[in-house]
Amino acid sequence: MKIEIKDLKDLAIRAILKTGNIKEADIGKILDVLLFADMTGRSTQGVIKLTGSEPLQTIVATDEIEITKETPVSVQINAHGNPAPLAAHFATEKVIEKCKTSGIGIAGLNGIYSSNGAQAYYADKIARAGFVALVASRSPGAIAPYGGKEPLFGTNPIAFGFPTLKNPLIFDMASSAITWYGLIKAKADGKPIPNDVAIDKNGELTTDPTAVMEGGAILPFDRSYKGAGIAMVVELLGGPLAGATFCNVDVQGKDWGAFILALDTGLFNDAEKFKESASELIKIVKNSKPRSSDVIVSIPGDRSLKFYKEALSTGEVEISDAILSELRDQVK
Amino acid sequence: MKIEIKDLKDLAIRAILKTGNIKEADIGKILDVLLFADMTGRSTQGVIKLTGSEPLQTIVATDEIEITKETPVSVQINAHGNPAPLAAHFATEKVIEKCKTSGIGIAGLNGIYSSNGAQAYYADKIARAGFVALVASRSPGAIAPYGGKEPLFGTNPIAFGFPTLKNPLIFDMASSAITWYGLIKAKADGKPIPNDVAIDKNGELTTDPTAVMEGGAILPFDRSYKGAGIAMVVELLGGPLAGATFCNVDVQGKDWGAFILALDTGLFNDAEKFKESASELIKIVKNSKPRSSDVIVSIPGDRSLKFYKEALSTGEVEISDAILSELRDQVK
Repeated sequence: MKIEIKDLKDLAIRAILKTGNIKEADIGKILDVLLFADMTGRSTQGVIKLTGSEPLQTIVATDEIEITKETPVSVQINAHGNPAPLAAHFATEKVIEKCKTSGIGIAGLNGIYSSNGAQAYYADKIARAGFVALVASRSPGAIAPYGGKEPLFGTNPIAFGFPTLKNPLIFDMASSAITWYGLIKAKADGKPIPNDVAIDKNGELTTDPTAVMEGGAILPFDRSYKGAGIAMVVELLGGPLAGATFCNVDVQGKDWGAFILALDTGLFNDAEKFKESASELIKIVKNSKPRSSDVIVSIPGDRSLKFYKEALSTGEVEISDAILSELRDQVK
Repeated sequence: MKIEIKDLKDLAIRAILKTGNIKEADIGKILDVLLFADMTGRSTQGVIKLTGSEPLQTIVATDEIEITKETPVSVQINAHGNPAPLAAHFATEKVIEKCKTSGIGIAGLNGIYSSNGAQAYYADKIARAGFVALVASRSPGAIAPYGGKEPLFGTNPIAFGFPTLKNPLIFDMASSAITWYGLIKAKADGKPIPNDVAIDKNGELTTDPTAVMEGGAILPFDRSYKGAGIAMVVELLGGPLAGATFCNVDVQGKDWGAFILALDTGLFNDAEKFKESASELIKIVKNSKPRSSDVIVSIPGDRSLKFYKEALSTGEVEISDAILSELRDQVK
């Protein structure tokens, strides 16, 4: 059902406060990430993360988020088990700071044991600060390598963000042919998954989500070697480079990891000129001829931006009845 | 036929000297790029570029390669029409220099009007210097955007390179379902192209390479929106960010463009530790179970590395008779 964003935010704050695990000053940052997801049509990355078997607000950190290494262009961060959206939010602010003074800022993030949500949130934040963004995160093993059947790479999303004269251009994709949440949802609904997105423990294509989750693996998004290569690149950036675990190896517990980069376009062209060119590029693409009269030419983020504008104008967002009901139960 | 690499190099040098357009000191750099391609099984990016209707050595630059903007972390380069492999070679050396002092080096390259060849060459060079590489180049319009039928994005290759304890891990892919050269070759051979890689001017799938080259477009590698998104990201990095043309727009003539980044892994982890982890990751992947007994699990660059090792050990490389014959004719 539709709910007013401010009411949803109040409800979420109360649900988080209930556990007492997260400092009041940090709650707003986490909700920024989750509400952005719901407002941009990414409901699987939104307040749903405050529900289910491992709600985000039940996470107990072992220490404060710590900068373990720092240079004028970079920061390595150990989140010490803090909720991933909080740590990635912190990392994003750091790379924007670095970028303002050095023209570039890069963060490697380890010590997280949960999903940081929509990569688009961080890419959008960096692009709205005027910079080019690259965000890549690794997660527990899910994707099989090319020719293989073991779930070695995470679903490994990667996102880019570019400032334009208007809204940033955000490209945010999972490396996998189906998301992990897609499996969970199909299982919960008792429904099959598409017949070409995942394999069982014998390496055979399967439509049974349970067979994938129990010893099987997801295929890369293109079902081929380029997609598997991209998943492996993200595994290296968000894993070994960031100082996090990789391929199910236990480095510091089985942490997740992330790589976040912000780049000042003014290092090359004039920064304003870049925005103009990016906007012109988008215009050329959107005004180009469609393949047939029943399709439209689209660019990354079109759908999300449409959701976002609607949420901003109506002040409302669509949340499933089950999620709302669970949140309301939590705060009773 | 097989030819000794040193004989091929001599032949290529003589072919280049024949036109008198390229300074002797620069010839070795260009041949480094081209011979790397032939030695790694990328024959479409090798000495073939010294043959055909627009041989590289006939390019006449308008000026010296010029650094137009520089900071401790970046360099913008106008190649003033010099051969693209020479300009990209120069840019690669610059980002490695910057990386050694600043931990990161980025180059934006414009004013090139030819292909810089195998992205893997530059990624490999950076990775062998001990750094992580990202190389992305845009070229004249070839790929249609998602839902569209106009050739707006180049075939737009993107490559990553990672140092390991042994040979670097190199991932190098075109954003397109078929390369431009693939179309040229099919046309020359009078053969059809696969039935799901390109469209004609009406937006219909076609197997006729001429129909693609004359008003049609190539599809992104996954035939879908993620691949089109990656092509667009490369268009932005190698185009507006680098200060080059984009989507067939005439910015400074219709130049190509490139983005090259080198990153010191020591900014985060210890650099040696990164190499160890990357090597372990590769080992885990290659030792993992195959989907079936008739396939092997592979990682990006496996095939190229096999070719490269063989070329190094035999001192020979495979070049088509037609190419060799054309080069020999050139130096008569």
